[in-house]
Amino acid sequence: MAANAPFKTKVPRNANMAKLQAGYLFPEIARRRAAHLLKFPDAKIISLGIGDTTEPIPDVITNAMAERAHALSTVDGYSGYGAEQGEKKLRAAIAATYYADLGIEETDIFVSDGAKCDISRLQVLFGSNVKIAVQDPSYPAYVDSSVIMGQTGLYQEDVQKYGNIEYMKCSPENGFFPDLSSVPRTDIIFFCSPNNPTGAAASRDQLTKLVKFAKDNGSIIVYDSAYAMYISDDSPKSIFEIPGAKEVAIETASFSKYAGFTGVRLGWTVVPKELLFSDGHPVAKDFNRIVCTCFNGASNISQAGGLGCLSPEGLKAMSDVVGFYKENTKIIVDTFTSLGFNVYGAKNAPYVWVHFPGRNSWDVFAEILEKAHVVTTPGSGFGPGGEGFVRVSAFGHRENIIEAARRLKQLYK
Amino acid sequence: MAANAPFKTKVPRNANMAKLQAGYLFPEIARRRAAHLLKFPDAKIISLGIGDTTEPIPDVITNAMAERAHALSTVDGYSGYGAEQGEKKLRAAIAATYYADLGIEETDIFVSDGAKCDISRLQVLFGSNVKIAVQDPSYPAYVDSSVIMGQTGLYQEDVQKYGNIEYMKCSPENGFFPDLSSVPRTDIIFFCSPNNPTGAAASRDQLTKLVKFAKDNGSIIVYDSAYAMYISDDSPKSIFEIPGAKEVAIETASFSKYAGFTGVRLGWTVVPKELLFSDGHPVAKDFNRIVCTCFNGASNISQAGGLGCLSPEGLKAMSDVVGFYKENTKIIVDTFTSLGFNVYGAKNAPYVWVHFPGRNSWDVFAEILEKAHVVTTPGSGFGPGGEGFVRVSAFGHRENIIEAARRLKQLYK
Repeated sequence: MAANAPFKTKVPRNANMAKLQAGYLFPEIARRRAAHLLKFPDAKIISLGIGDTTEPIPDVITNAMAERAHALSTVDGYSGYGAEQGEKKLRAAIAATYYADLGIEETDIFVSDGAKCDISRLQVLFGSNVKIAVQDPSYPAYVDSSVIMGQTGLYQEDVQKYGNIEYMKCSPENGFFPDLSSVPRTDIIFFCSPNNPTGAAASRDQLTKLVKFAKDNGSIIVYDSAYAMYISDDSPKSIFEIPGAKEVAIETASFSKYAGFTGVRLGWTVVPKELLFSDGHPVAKDFNRIVCTCFNGASNISQAGGLGCLSPEGLKAMSDVVGFYKENTKIIVDTFTSLGFNVYGAKNAPYVWVHFPGRNSWDVFAEILEKAHVVTTPGSGFGPGGEGFVRVSAFGHRENIIEAARRLKQLYK
Repeated sequence: MAANAPFKTKVPRNANMAKLQAGYLFPEIARRRAAHLLKFPDAKIISLGIGDTTEPIPDVITNAMAERAHALSTVDGYSGYGAEQGEKKLRAAIAATYYADLGIEETDIFVSDGAKCDISRLQVLFGSNVKIAVQDPSYPAYVDSSVIMGQTGLYQEDVQKYGNIEYMKCSPENGFFPDLSSVPRTDIIFFCSPNNPTGAAASRDQLTKLVKFAKDNGSIIVYDSAYAMYISDDSPKSIFEIPGAKEVAIETASFSKYAGFTGVRLGWTVVPKELLFSDGHPVAKDFNRIVCTCFNGASNISQAGGLGCLSPEGLKAMSDVVGFYKENTKIIVDTFTSLGFNVYGAKNAPYVWVHFPGRNSWDVFAEILEKAHVVTTPGSGFGPGGEGFVRVSAFGHRENIIEAARRLKQLYK
């Protein structure tokens, strides 16, 4: 050993962390974007990669947050620790706005600092001895948090999957809804609808099948509805629209993509009191304990923003924001369609899922970045089922969307 | 089975969750407080229990947050997802303010939504196969998050300890610093100084011993410095003041108790790049992955508040807030001392650790609540070493502190 060899502790690295492949997808894309900028310092990069909102937050909402911030400097307006589960008024407003008539009560709602954080807390709740299923492709946080919690086997390079995870293929062939008759039972089923990245929203009929499947198997569905407000057709906006779902499902949701809260951080998770572990213990009781022990509630200022979102003016303003991004979506769809590509999603989601049959997703990503200075997301970053696709996000200023469309037309004409 | 027996999933409850005893301490206290109010609806309860700040946030800080909130409704001022590790400016300001000359760099700083949340993320990072040591008594989140992660055995009712955790007794007899010669090696050592609940700050000499102990054993210290600004004597304010600490320590800190940010949620954790697992892998690399996968950064508005805190006016304002609570501390110390109690802590912390020799902490808690309508925290809630003590928090409006002192004098005269 060299005299100046670095000191090492005797603490073993967590073997689960060592299983993780490369970087988490979006930081990896940020790294490649930065490398591109080094190579082309003058490139006017347009980012349609990470699904990051770009439009200002409606001021009815920011005013509510500024007001709360100012109030915190007054004796009467100051508040310290809030309830770990969220402020009562906000929990009530979420229940009333999104779950009226669905039998979900204020006490079933846990306010969070975002869906990603709650997914991770749910994994901590479930622990190491469960097996999960995910849509393939799917938002990477489900799989990566499962790996971190030790629920999986090693990554298998040949199939690009981790051991002990059930990947439910979602492709144009099955209308982006898995063939449940071929899916083995798992404890947990992560299901995102409208889906990130494919943009597909499951129909009422499909979700009814999913709930029945969970019930038959005694599984728990973790339903990610972060894009529900983008639904244009009659697909359910909540899993709890399906009868019986309260006994088998958790729903996680977020203000990020409606109000532009990606940086403000606010979401919620519904854990119905009817949902029970095999020993009859309510899941919500354990989740409450996790929230109290590992979390201290979302920022009170963000929560004031949430209340602003759910005021009549706030709801209207959010709907306008969503409408704006939906117009962007249409521009992107028209662009790729006019170039002869098959595109999916888009109707009920701010994502366009573009097919490049037979091509490697990262190659297409690199090609679009190199030649059009446009950042997309390689489909294979969401699982092997995403190979041959790229996800194009509709979050962007209008002029950028139009300019990206122009460059893409030039590239693929 | 009854026809209308509730449906149970087949998902097993996480056995680690089942190990946890009763409620997390502070929600349990809140529960008892609520029960007391039901019994005495007119009681003017004064809460010196949970260490929750009560004084308004200085407006130089709230103005910064309001300004950022308003900016988010403008095209130029809007920002979406920030860096998961925190905004570059804030990381740089934290490094410059608290770690100048200590060799800690901006990139070693991870901004968080509070120390409790980061403790939990650190436990997820370490995984199930480590053994921890804690001061006894100590802040319950260390032990409870360890239980949740499956690092421990069952709770042993007779000794009031979990199996496979090393409890390092800290009492008046050893000056609240453990006798390290009798402490077996563990992978992780949670160490809080100034300590919550005892209020004891470790001296430079003691911390030098602690770092040497960690180095000899190849352990990692998780050093919780959430109360460092309350230090009045020459005790170190950061573990990194001790030479060599960067190779064995992580430090977690928070704006909560300085700026009144308990509800705003902002803290940070320092993971020096010099800290390595036994295989040479940098701990910071894995923590970065945890932060990217399980967290999405603290609220941008809270981070603007953090920058406000670290401005020259903000630093002065925080120091005034800390000074105010320190005056409260003196009133509480004088009260108990005049009544003949032995009190500890207080000099370097906003907590007074009051000795009730031979009595059960929860009984004393109940007595003070029933007879003086004052909420304290039972020492045994922090571990068996806290039995016979109660923690009295100095966070409160001045008139409440004075009134609580009056009631306590009446009760124990």
